[in-house]
Amino acid sequence: MSSLVLPLSIQAPPPSLHDNTGDLDRLRQALSVQLPDAKFLEIPFSRLVSLCRKFRGNGFQGTALLNCLPDKWVLADFLSELPKELFAVALDLGTTHLEASLLDMSTGKVLAGANRENSQIEYGADILSRIHHATAKRRRSKKVAPDFIDPGLVELKSAIMRCINGLCKELTEKVGITDEAPRAIAISGNTTMVHLLLGLDPFHICREPYIPLANSIGPLEAGEIGLNIHPAAAVWIMPSVGSYFGGDLISGILAAGLARSEKTRMMIDVGTNAEVVVGNREWLIACAGAAGPALEGGVARMGMRAAPGAIDYVAIDQDSYSLSYKTIGDTPPEGICGSGLIDLVAALFLSRMIDVRGKFRTAEKENDPERAKCIRQRIIIHDGQPAFIVVPAHESKGNKPVLLEQIDLDAMIRSKAAMYAILTTLVNQVGIEFADLEEICVAGAFGRHINPGRAVTLGMLPDLDLSVYRAIGNSSLKGAEKVLSDGDARKECVDIVSKITYIELNVNQEFMIRFSGSRFIPHTDPSLFPSVPVFEGE
Amino acid sequence: MSSLVLPLSIQAPPPSLHDNTGDLDRLRQALSVQLPDAKFLEIPFSRLVSLCRKFRGNGFQGTALLNCLPDKWVLADFLSELPKELFAVALDLGTTHLEASLLDMSTGKVLAGANRENSQIEYGADILSRIHHATAKRRRSKKVAPDFIDPGLVELKSAIMRCINGLCKELTEKVGITDEAPRAIAISGNTTMVHLLLGLDPFHICREPYIPLANSIGPLEAGEIGLNIHPAAAVWIMPSVGSYFGGDLISGILAAGLARSEKTRMMIDVGTNAEVVVGNREWLIACAGAAGPALEGGVARMGMRAAPGAIDYVAIDQDSYSLSYKTIGDTPPEGICGSGLIDLVAALFLSRMIDVRGKFRTAEKENDPERAKCIRQRIIIHDGQPAFIVVPAHESKGNKPVLLEQIDLDAMIRSKAAMYAILTTLVNQVGIEFADLEEICVAGAFGRHINPGRAVTLGMLPDLDLSVYRAIGNSSLKGAEKVLSDGDARKECVDIVSKITYIELNVNQEFMIRFSGSRFIPHTDPSLFPSVPVFEGE
Repeated sequence: MSSLVLPLSIQAPPPSLHDNTGDLDRLRQALSVQLPDAKFLEIPFSRLVSLCRKFRGNGFQGTALLNCLPDKWVLADFLSELPKELFAVALDLGTTHLEASLLDMSTGKVLAGANRENSQIEYGADILSRIHHATAKRRRSKKVAPDFIDPGLVELKSAIMRCINGLCKELTEKVGITDEAPRAIAISGNTTMVHLLLGLDPFHICREPYIPLANSIGPLEAGEIGLNIHPAAAVWIMPSVGSYFGGDLISGILAAGLARSEKTRMMIDVGTNAEVVVGNREWLIACAGAAGPALEGGVARMGMRAAPGAIDYVAIDQDSYSLSYKTIGDTPPEGICGSGLIDLVAALFLSRMIDVRGKFRTAEKENDPERAKCIRQRIIIHDGQPAFIVVPAHESKGNKPVLLEQIDLDAMIRSKAAMYAILTTLVNQVGIEFADLEEICVAGAFGRHINPGRAVTLGMLPDLDLSVYRAIGNSSLKGAEKVLSDGDARKECVDIVSKITYIELNVNQEFMIRFSGSRFIPHTDPSLFPSVPVFEGE
Repeated sequence: MSSLVLPLSIQAPPPSLHDNTGDLDRLRQALSVQLPDAKFLEIPFSRLVSLCRKFRGNGFQGTALLNCLPDKWVLADFLSELPKELFAVALDLGTTHLEASLLDMSTGKVLAGANRENSQIEYGADILSRIHHATAKRRRSKKVAPDFIDPGLVELKSAIMRCINGLCKELTEKVGITDEAPRAIAISGNTTMVHLLLGLDPFHICREPYIPLANSIGPLEAGEIGLNIHPAAAVWIMPSVGSYFGGDLISGILAAGLARSEKTRMMIDVGTNAEVVVGNREWLIACAGAAGPALEGGVARMGMRAAPGAIDYVAIDQDSYSLSYKTIGDTPPEGICGSGLIDLVAALFLSRMIDVRGKFRTAEKENDPERAKCIRQRIIIHDGQPAFIVVPAHESKGNKPVLLEQIDLDAMIRSKAAMYAILTTLVNQVGIEFADLEEICVAGAFGRHINPGRAVTLGMLPDLDLSVYRAIGNSSLKGAEKVLSDGDARKECVDIVSKITYIELNVNQEFMIRFSGSRFIPHTDPSLFPSVPVFEGE
């Protein structure tokens, strides 16, 4: 345990005619003898005068705050006394949502939390449209000048900076400290989000062979990038592995402890992409694929984030076919979130209102009269397509029915197929079976809300004892919190990046074959899912 | 030999689907395998995008320019081809005068030179009055805020920056290269001049116990301090040892090779102060004292710098008492420079027109009629004081006589006494004799123009075989030139600073006693100067 900012009490002899050492050199000497290692000590020119004056003004003694970077110490500030707390901000910089916490670096204790929508959304909902916006002008010129700065990138950078500064303000106000009290920030985001935050040209991220400008950004200072915390605060950006394997996932691996585990474990993080890592302290293999949108709830017409008003639980009684549901915050329903969608589709399958291909059944061929009645009541034709009424208009918040349309159901089936194909491709690559996994950590809101049993019913997750699954929450944020107070965790980030093997699924033939086989409920090979009932005549 | 900026040709494999390393990481890897040592490689955030674009735009190959700093490499630029020359500027930042040269760092060859008056002079002629100006506002407040910037300091900083930028412009125009072509600058100046250049508070420099804010300034970049050469150019500031022992002298010791010499040698640099170092590769001892002004020619009423129109040679025939002189540039005389002054006073002593105390004789007590005639012709009463007419009005440039007044003669005697007292105190401290010195290097314009024999006559320099004396020119500038092209010289600077012992003469009792004994021509103890005639009846 050693925090990203080290407080160091020093005491130097005052100058005399027999000791004419300069103030800066005196400060440097007093620090050098106390530093825990021989790393280079940098005293930035920009704050040289003010640091020397504080040192002299305090009688050549006091507490130095040093940013502990991988290759050097940087003197950040000089205080008259050892501070009681060392505040820091941890930030999960998501494409759609930001979540942050304020903590005391010296203890790791979280003092407050806050979250808000990513304000870059006004320039584009997803990563591709934001890259498009950030490169609007440079795409029009054949050759880009080295110093060219795209106005679109500036807009996106300003938007996210305002958003983060707003979060920081909210956090410091909650704890009752000044804007400048936080002395460090750890940011964990996907590769594109990090580029847009730092004003790095993201042009090649979305063009084959998908190369980011940078995966590892040397530590920065808050003032250098426009963050309104202490200007000398250390900014730790989680390193990424590639364009589609970002620092948020490195953060997750860190939080899940995969790289420190003797037994092999798996981590699944469903955000805009589904990102999966399997490994132990010897090796790590990862891949990512577009399995997310339907599950995250941001794409389906009635989909929504796991927020108040979102249906997060659905059940259909298999005798009466009556439907029950629950919303987050127990408010009238507005839409349906990822976990609700999984519950719903699993329930529709178990009550045989959709078939193994995920298509709505019709009442005509139905021999169970109760089911036929339910189908006639619940399945309507909407915009020329079958749709299932989850909640009738009069029960909903906006007096509009919450529907599951065939098109959303199809997207859901593709997503669950992609997810299972990703998982099987990955374990097959390393030559293990699902049964060999000690644990499967499911991260994020997805992990917090889903019922793994329902996901197994759909054939989205492997048919294992449910105790194998563990929800680990916002692992991207947790990893960021960890690096602020734990020096070993900071070293582990570098270790993870150097150890990890990344499989690009977009060009993987095996994945495509497995994806096709997974587009049935639960699978074309039902023997893989012994716990899921097989209905005759399907 | 290795220049302050290292050009490094690199070639990296282009990215592919199987090698998704980010551009920055690719550049870093390609550089790391080629660097001559394992020092940390820094790629500054501010030019990260432009460097990556140049690297990619040139097909992932080309020439990197790296600033070679003591503790790290800093990537300064990326070029498509290996440059033919690596331009750099060396600067002697004097209190009254600046001298600079433009050279090719890769060979050390000097391509052009230029010099100009220090434009800070309008704010104060000497160091003390400039410190006064630079601290005018802060002196009025009891406690100075850490971030306070004195407007007077800003004025002085701007003035010197304009002056240096003017010199750089002149040099680049002479060689026919762009403003941004120089990739490095080495600056050698006294401690106060360095503080005023960098905007460092000089308040305590002139207050007991005379402590500078900094003696060693970590390497900077030109853009960081406002120099109009390449913004990423390495700025090497010669380290100082104390408030009154600056980087200019470290530079001189380097140029004279004292710290590399097996035999003991001495270096004398007469600027505003007289600075003297004695030592060899085992040890170095230095001191400084106010012996300069009268010798530098900036204080005496008719004194002037060694420039066209300055009398730099004077002789008086000991039979006819006729006076002959020479001016720099052979133009009509305007004043008298340090070497001319030494010649003149030595000649006045040898022709017995001044006595051993340096007082003008009168014609009354004179028994040599020729000398009495000459005294009546040449020694007048001016402003109530005796004065010697060196050049009558009709021969001079401004139709005003060039006079040596008693007050200037007194100052000259004090200076020469201080100089000899400094030298004797110093050799006595280390327990050697003057005769043990292998060589005495005399730096600067003083060294270039004086006749050591005349200085011996006055008792200013020890009475040694004249072959011991060597004029080494502007050693401050030469040392700055050296560090630009020679890595060993850069290391030697650090070695010199750590090795040197500095004796503070202001508090040295021995010096004061020796100073009193030296206020005669040549000395109260004439046996110390066997080559100087002793006149009876004195």
